[in-house]
Amino acid sequence: METLSVPHARPLPNGFLDRLSARFGLQCQTSEAIRAQHGASESQYPTVLPDAVVFARSTQDVVDCVNLCREAGVAIVPFGAGTSLEGHTLPLEGGVSLDLTPMDAVLAVNHADFDCTVQPGIRREALNAHLRDSGLFFPIDPGANASIGGMASTRASGTNAVRYGTMREAVLGLEVVTPQGKVIRTGKRAKKSAAGYDLTRLYIGSEGTLGVITGITLRLHPVPEAIMAATCPFETLSGAIETVVQAFHCGVPMARIELLDAMQVHAVNLRSKLGLPEAPTLFFEFHGTPNGVAEQVETVKGLASANGGGAFQWATLAEDRNRLWRARHESYYAAVNLRPGAIGLTTDVCVPMSRLAECILATRADLDSCSVPATILGHVGDGNFHLVFSIDPNAPHEMAEVEAVNHRMVARALAMDGTCTGEHGVGIGKQQCLIDELGEDAVDVMRTLKQVLDPGNIFNPGKIFRS
Amino acid sequence: METLSVPHARPLPNGFLDRLSARFGLQCQTSEAIRAQHGASESQYPTVLPDAVVFARSTQDVVDCVNLCREAGVAIVPFGAGTSLEGHTLPLEGGVSLDLTPMDAVLAVNHADFDCTVQPGIRREALNAHLRDSGLFFPIDPGANASIGGMASTRASGTNAVRYGTMREAVLGLEVVTPQGKVIRTGKRAKKSAAGYDLTRLYIGSEGTLGVITGITLRLHPVPEAIMAATCPFETLSGAIETVVQAFHCGVPMARIELLDAMQVHAVNLRSKLGLPEAPTLFFEFHGTPNGVAEQVETVKGLASANGGGAFQWATLAEDRNRLWRARHESYYAAVNLRPGAIGLTTDVCVPMSRLAECILATRADLDSCSVPATILGHVGDGNFHLVFSIDPNAPHEMAEVEAVNHRMVARALAMDGTCTGEHGVGIGKQQCLIDELGEDAVDVMRTLKQVLDPGNIFNPGKIFRS
Repeated sequence: METLSVPHARPLPNGFLDRLSARFGLQCQTSEAIRAQHGASESQYPTVLPDAVVFARSTQDVVDCVNLCREAGVAIVPFGAGTSLEGHTLPLEGGVSLDLTPMDAVLAVNHADFDCTVQPGIRREALNAHLRDSGLFFPIDPGANASIGGMASTRASGTNAVRYGTMREAVLGLEVVTPQGKVIRTGKRAKKSAAGYDLTRLYIGSEGTLGVITGITLRLHPVPEAIMAATCPFETLSGAIETVVQAFHCGVPMARIELLDAMQVHAVNLRSKLGLPEAPTLFFEFHGTPNGVAEQVETVKGLASANGGGAFQWATLAEDRNRLWRARHESYYAAVNLRPGAIGLTTDVCVPMSRLAECILATRADLDSCSVPATILGHVGDGNFHLVFSIDPNAPHEMAEVEAVNHRMVARALAMDGTCTGEHGVGIGKQQCLIDELGEDAVDVMRTLKQVLDPGNIFNPGKIFRS
Repeated sequence: METLSVPHARPLPNGFLDRLSARFGLQCQTSEAIRAQHGASESQYPTVLPDAVVFARSTQDVVDCVNLCREAGVAIVPFGAGTSLEGHTLPLEGGVSLDLTPMDAVLAVNHADFDCTVQPGIRREALNAHLRDSGLFFPIDPGANASIGGMASTRASGTNAVRYGTMREAVLGLEVVTPQGKVIRTGKRAKKSAAGYDLTRLYIGSEGTLGVITGITLRLHPVPEAIMAATCPFETLSGAIETVVQAFHCGVPMARIELLDAMQVHAVNLRSKLGLPEAPTLFFEFHGTPNGVAEQVETVKGLASANGGGAFQWATLAEDRNRLWRARHESYYAAVNLRPGAIGLTTDVCVPMSRLAECILATRADLDSCSVPATILGHVGDGNFHLVFSIDPNAPHEMAEVEAVNHRMVARALAMDGTCTGEHGVGIGKQQCLIDELGEDAVDVMRTLKQVLDPGNIFNPGKIFRS
């Protein structure tokens, strides 16, 4: 996380907005309210207004908008649900916020192949609602009800990634509009391919800097025969973490294994009335055959008990499970709201399992001497965890204090051979961290790719790298 | 597969071999025997001699060789086990074959994290021998005892991919020497990361055209508690395929599910004395807990029986299992040797599961009217299958006939939304297929990446795209 410098809006060429309006009519909006909505984010960054918002209804709309922007040298920032956490959708150089939410169709569900093709604007909950009677589901779940296009752009993962992988594994192929206005398809529907460079993975996680994703073919998974979810409180944070590490070592194919520290459980209780004991807690979900789930539960209960875990509280009905995971998903808001009027700042790292306990405990100790309230929670089965700070916007020293804690946590994770971000992405705040992690030469390769694929630097300028 | 045009060897600048020799001494070899060994391949392509072979012992050796070649404009072709199947290691423009087999160390095994870091020259069987007492194994198994660097370069997969994924999923990070002679690291050891462009996946499958892989950090997996393997003959090819498709639909987490057609079983019996009934046959392997494996076996036996499957023949002892899979792995040689003195040509496609039966049956019908003997076998749990032709080198019409069958199979797979190669790669033979699959605009993006990352076109020129 770094301080957001004052954005340098590019001057709009004469007549650009008129040309945009002539092409897009009411799909082009310049009211302050709509611009503000697209220039705000869920994170700590101040609002930055785009010059216009274009609502795309088709790939052709995207092509035309890209061509108009490229010809005019105007920046273009793809926008989905706006739920990303590193300022990805902020139009740092003004220009057009390209809202893809009208492109929210499910184009095909191939039941026999466990895949589907969707437009980028559909949100993950809507996709799963669409799939409800198919016996299939889309597992990637970053918490927020994000758009699938945004999830691909940021290489999202979340609670189910420990079992089902991240967006990197979930996407079979993309349709992308390049900065040159070409429409390319990066892959077909085969489960694997060795045909040429992996363009799919190049665009996944590129944070809108290389093109606009206009179609996504996704792997789906059969709804498991048996699903069980539970929470378990622990005497100590280290006992909870040790349980996770041991479950990993035993090869238990957990579907979800989430850690909430005591302060996070307190926040969740306040917001979602779960009534959980306010101790470090694991949230579990087990998927499989009935026998397979029973085996997993038995193993994990044994591990928990040996590590100071209390009684498992089961959510057996689907509605109880949904309530539990909704509470987990609202953890961010719950934590931010620990202080009235606070703004949130969240950050994440991911480390090898062998260092997870050490990394979390050292970070918790650092937080305990920080004056800003903060919680720890995370997708610990992957070695990934988050901090959520609840910052007083009228106390400037708090942001500086938080930045120092974040900086120390990232340095700690990198020293453990981990990454500066497991799932939030680089965006605005982790550009120096990326260099610290992989080195200037590797980041130079990325800059070279950006420069050659988007020579006018019109796509989401200022993200991942400085413009 | 296309006809190999006469290679255009670049003229070596004066004194280049002297400079190479001065730097590398006996690590640089120019004898015809060693050059011929590095200019041959396991496939149908004629031998193409490099001007020299350099045996790299360290990343610094690679850097120095790359710098010498770049400064002289000499081509450089990374070489591992030489087991690839699309002519990847043939030095089409002469130059240096950079043999990485001396770099075969296991640099670290992190037992608690289920990962290891190796040099590129180690072969997969040697890696698994090294891991033997660790309780961990490296699952990716393309059949051949390939080098890990080569497997990363070609995005290899193989028999276990249906359960454990391909090299795309297996690699956590790479060390790469770029054409500029820089050493970069593309990722650390965290299980996931959202930090910047996915350089790891860019180099995986780039077939040596973008740089030299000098280090690989791999995910490992715990050896399952229970392993069972079996074969099952079927009355019909379609019954065998239908069993695979239904096992996929039931979500059975098969570790291996391999198809051999009747002629392939005949070939394997001849070579490996397995004594199997010469019918379309599935080879299975089940991994899990004892109860989990028992459940899987029960489900699959039921499916097989309903689809005309015969008795399961179990390989319960580890040595029987190894014998079975060794026979499977030698299928290629077994099929080629169906005719004395024949040369082999193998090709593969991968299609969505819903089209697998149609694709295989139409291809088998096409083969039945082809005068060249050919077998079908494949990693059908992924929708991936191979043809192996046994071609008389003295009958030129045979190669033309085989090319036509291959062309029709690729066209059939693409029309079914599949890929022109599931795992063999593009190399020399599938360059037009790649364009047919993804279109000129997508391949242009790949060409752009190649041109900017390797502006002198020194890295494995002529592969994936025409130089």
